[in-house]
Amino acid sequence: MNTLSTIRTAGRATSRRTLSGRVSSLRAPRTATIYQIFRSASTVAAEGQPNITKPKESAKKEVRFTADSYPEIKRDSRFAELTADDVKHFQSICPILSSETGNSEDELNAFNIDWMRKYRGQARLVLKPKNTEDISKILKYCNERKLAVVPQGGNTGLVGGGVPVFDEIVISMNALNNIRSFDPVSGILVADAGVILETADSHLRKHGHIFPLDLGAKGSCHIGGNVATNAGGLRLLRYGSLHGTVLGVEAVLPDGTILDDLSLLRKNNTGYDLKQLFIGSEGTIGIITAISVLCPQMPKAQNVAFFAVESFDKVQKTFVKAKQQLSEILSAFELMDAGTQSLVAKVTGKKRPLESQTPFYVLIETSGSNPEHDSEKLSTLLEDLMESGDVTDGTLAESETQARELWGWREGIPEVLGHGGGVYKYDVSIPLAEFYTLVEDTRAHLASQGLLKSESNPDGVVIDVVGYGHMGDSNLHLNIPVSQYDKRIEKALEPFVYIWIQKRRGSISAEHGLGVAKSEFVGYSRAETELGVMRMLKKLFDPNGIMNPYKYIKA
Amino acid sequence: MNTLSTIRTAGRATSRRTLSGRVSSLRAPRTATIYQIFRSASTVAAEGQPNITKPKESAKKEVRFTADSYPEIKRDSRFAELTADDVKHFQSICPILSSETGNSEDELNAFNIDWMRKYRGQARLVLKPKNTEDISKILKYCNERKLAVVPQGGNTGLVGGGVPVFDEIVISMNALNNIRSFDPVSGILVADAGVILETADSHLRKHGHIFPLDLGAKGSCHIGGNVATNAGGLRLLRYGSLHGTVLGVEAVLPDGTILDDLSLLRKNNTGYDLKQLFIGSEGTIGIITAISVLCPQMPKAQNVAFFAVESFDKVQKTFVKAKQQLSEILSAFELMDAGTQSLVAKVTGKKRPLESQTPFYVLIETSGSNPEHDSEKLSTLLEDLMESGDVTDGTLAESETQARELWGWREGIPEVLGHGGGVYKYDVSIPLAEFYTLVEDTRAHLASQGLLKSESNPDGVVIDVVGYGHMGDSNLHLNIPVSQYDKRIEKALEPFVYIWIQKRRGSISAEHGLGVAKSEFVGYSRAETELGVMRMLKKLFDPNGIMNPYKYIKA
Repeated sequence: MNTLSTIRTAGRATSRRTLSGRVSSLRAPRTATIYQIFRSASTVAAEGQPNITKPKESAKKEVRFTADSYPEIKRDSRFAELTADDVKHFQSICPILSSETGNSEDELNAFNIDWMRKYRGQARLVLKPKNTEDISKILKYCNERKLAVVPQGGNTGLVGGGVPVFDEIVISMNALNNIRSFDPVSGILVADAGVILETADSHLRKHGHIFPLDLGAKGSCHIGGNVATNAGGLRLLRYGSLHGTVLGVEAVLPDGTILDDLSLLRKNNTGYDLKQLFIGSEGTIGIITAISVLCPQMPKAQNVAFFAVESFDKVQKTFVKAKQQLSEILSAFELMDAGTQSLVAKVTGKKRPLESQTPFYVLIETSGSNPEHDSEKLSTLLEDLMESGDVTDGTLAESETQARELWGWREGIPEVLGHGGGVYKYDVSIPLAEFYTLVEDTRAHLASQGLLKSESNPDGVVIDVVGYGHMGDSNLHLNIPVSQYDKRIEKALEPFVYIWIQKRRGSISAEHGLGVAKSEFVGYSRAETELGVMRMLKKLFDPNGIMNPYKYIKA
Repeated sequence: MNTLSTIRTAGRATSRRTLSGRVSSLRAPRTATIYQIFRSASTVAAEGQPNITKPKESAKKEVRFTADSYPEIKRDSRFAELTADDVKHFQSICPILSSETGNSEDELNAFNIDWMRKYRGQARLVLKPKNTEDISKILKYCNERKLAVVPQGGNTGLVGGGVPVFDEIVISMNALNNIRSFDPVSGILVADAGVILETADSHLRKHGHIFPLDLGAKGSCHIGGNVATNAGGLRLLRYGSLHGTVLGVEAVLPDGTILDDLSLLRKNNTGYDLKQLFIGSEGTIGIITAISVLCPQMPKAQNVAFFAVESFDKVQKTFVKAKQQLSEILSAFELMDAGTQSLVAKVTGKKRPLESQTPFYVLIETSGSNPEHDSEKLSTLLEDLMESGDVTDGTLAESETQARELWGWREGIPEVLGHGGGVYKYDVSIPLAEFYTLVEDTRAHLASQGLLKSESNPDGVVIDVVGYGHMGDSNLHLNIPVSQYDKRIEKALEPFVYIWIQKRRGSISAEHGLGVAKSEFVGYSRAETELGVMRMLKKLFDPNGIMNPYKYIKA
């Protein structure tokens, strides 16, 4: 049956159809061009926004104070209150924004409110240091005075980690934005923490390299913030995590000490690898002021394929074959279930890339150094998958436009999910064998609670339970589109989802970190012994607790 | 001139010669086979042995006690002396070896003396725990009693880190040797720390995968020891460091707490990445009892090329081109200077792979998923390098035997270096721009001290100053073959070499760690602020200092 399936070229549904299973003639052109796939910052970054946010509507409304949304969080009385003398002192160090010196609430709100408009702090002072020494002076003073601080990068975080909760002083990293050096021989970039990811990447592309990380928010996020939150993004499958690619950090400790571990070396076995503690520490043990990072060659060719698959078992087989046959050039393996694709089709009104209606769709991207070789490998994989029946239908992009269109069916998902009223979102890691089971189990659970809309339950408030994500990284986005937000749904979902993940030793936050949003749930992904060691570390580095309080691992 | 150079196929010097610069006909066969390049454990592991060791001769002699070689190290009086009651207690936990229970000195020496026979401790007790719980009980007891311990893996270390200095109890990891699981879909292996690297790799190869690390000592070293020492090895250029590939560790803290961070996830942003502290900690903050690691696909093809290059500037150009054109399949870029190749030729009497006598030779290896594609990429690179004159001469292996022969000119170096009498050795990282300058500067320095043998100084005790190593990783092996060991040479070399490296922000120990050998020199690669933080961490995890004392970062 599968051998009779159709293989089409994206955007040319009527041409090039084969009914005989002969797919070799459908290879992408040998002269495949270099694709630069431009992604919409808002859609991709929004994909992991926590739970019930709907930025577009809420943007018009007043943003609630985080302190009101989380009444259980109280201001820590150990911290001093800001005085006029403090403000004067900071003015002697660097430019500031302050209600004391006449800045408006709107000006401060740009730093108090996160980009999703979900979190809102009450800082009355924003500091704009120009260099590492300024930050050293600031932290030394704050530590002595017991003034709490929040380091802020591009303010593109998804868990409220980059804005204050109460009156913490915001330390904006915007002015630390120099690219210090790039060596095209070694591929090592050294740059200030406040350099915007896209700026760093553009600089590298001029020298035939790329940053080893790609994110929807690349136009705004800072590379220092990326490292501080251990951002995962779109290239992790190919280039690995920042724990492997970051070679060094320069950081200021809470007491003002400048820790200079800005190594230019791939190998350096001389003591504990301190920089690793800062990667993913979310500003709780110090402020990263610069990084050195190993940057890969810019790929000469990128190809995109899109497949229809009949079962999750076959998705797994497809993944294994893709790893085997594409191996070193596989740069993305994205899963989308039928629910997500129906929604994208319905909301956008676009023609689907494949006619086959299957429970799963897979997008595969390759990035390599030889366009001919890459196309050949991908075509061979496609033949194999069709002949074995692992996939039912498939298409290969033949141009950058087609590649972008195919990516649209993956990247358009976050935007369409809220169209029915709202959406509950989870960004989790699950071992691959049970990767999709969470979606099925959550659906069954919500149905058993009478919440899932169906023919027999037309008034159900839950429209659907869908899943998609970076399967190549075991990173699932579980989404529950609803017609309205409802306490019953929240009660049905939590702690159900977290307990489910805990049983599989998954992660309740795959790539977005803990911040305020996930802090209280960390026990579902970490044992008490681990949390105990983490608290000891926090206390060691930040005995006064001034660094980004009320978040992450709480005392 | 260069266009007239010869390109030969390894082992067939007289055939296939071209004098016209047409190299396209000399491509490796399209049906290149899978090479499994077997390396001699003794030669490769010996390559970084510190300073003046000559295992083959010294093996016959009595090994000096480390305490005698390092008289400045005194036994820490905080530690308790072992009693008969202690031994009895340990017997109730696991099998032991002890002078108290009738084991001979020879039996204990197997654990007291390192494989190079350079370091010798005085342990009277060796513990052989069978599982993590045994180790937890052991450490809890030792911590309470203040008995110092040394965790010991395969005892293949190069800096004396795995054997006692005084009477520390040896905890042998040999019996923790179960492969717990391997998932061919995700490529994740979970295994006990005491599994031998080659055993793990063989297990993975049965499932089409490989361990992301390869070492000369693979037949003896433990994967737990590899992680504890952050081993680099032969695959780092391609698969990255263990900081990126190790997904989780299970470790026992000095107080007996079992830290279970044995994650199966590529993404998990829920708190400080504790496992990273254990990677490269050399047994000083706890004992790694198991690891989970992401394992790459087994490459379907490996190719080896060997080039003659006229200057280090051209070596750098060749490296950049190799990275650009081989990109994702480049798995080794090894540099050998003329001095090393003359020595190998002289000692082995073998015919050189290339006739051209140039100051530098480069070995390039590719590992990929498609033999045809890989050969084509390598041949294209070869053409480019020849036409541009970046290389003078080159050859491509056409069989596994030829590939092994070419590797022999790189891997045979450590063994031949001591043939003139002895050799002083350094294993360092240096930023690429000045990678080879250390060799030239050291030569000039030794010449200026009247130590270098030359026509005008025939009595010089220094035969030569040579360099080779993993250039792809910025990892240089600086070697000084001498006719005899001489205090004047040592004085001329140290701290000269360390100061030189410090000025370039290099590493005095690229991959072999600190142990006893490099502990006192760590200040040349780490600032006092870094060392201060490291000491705080050590104290936090191991307040009684019982874990592997007298080594690494000293209090």
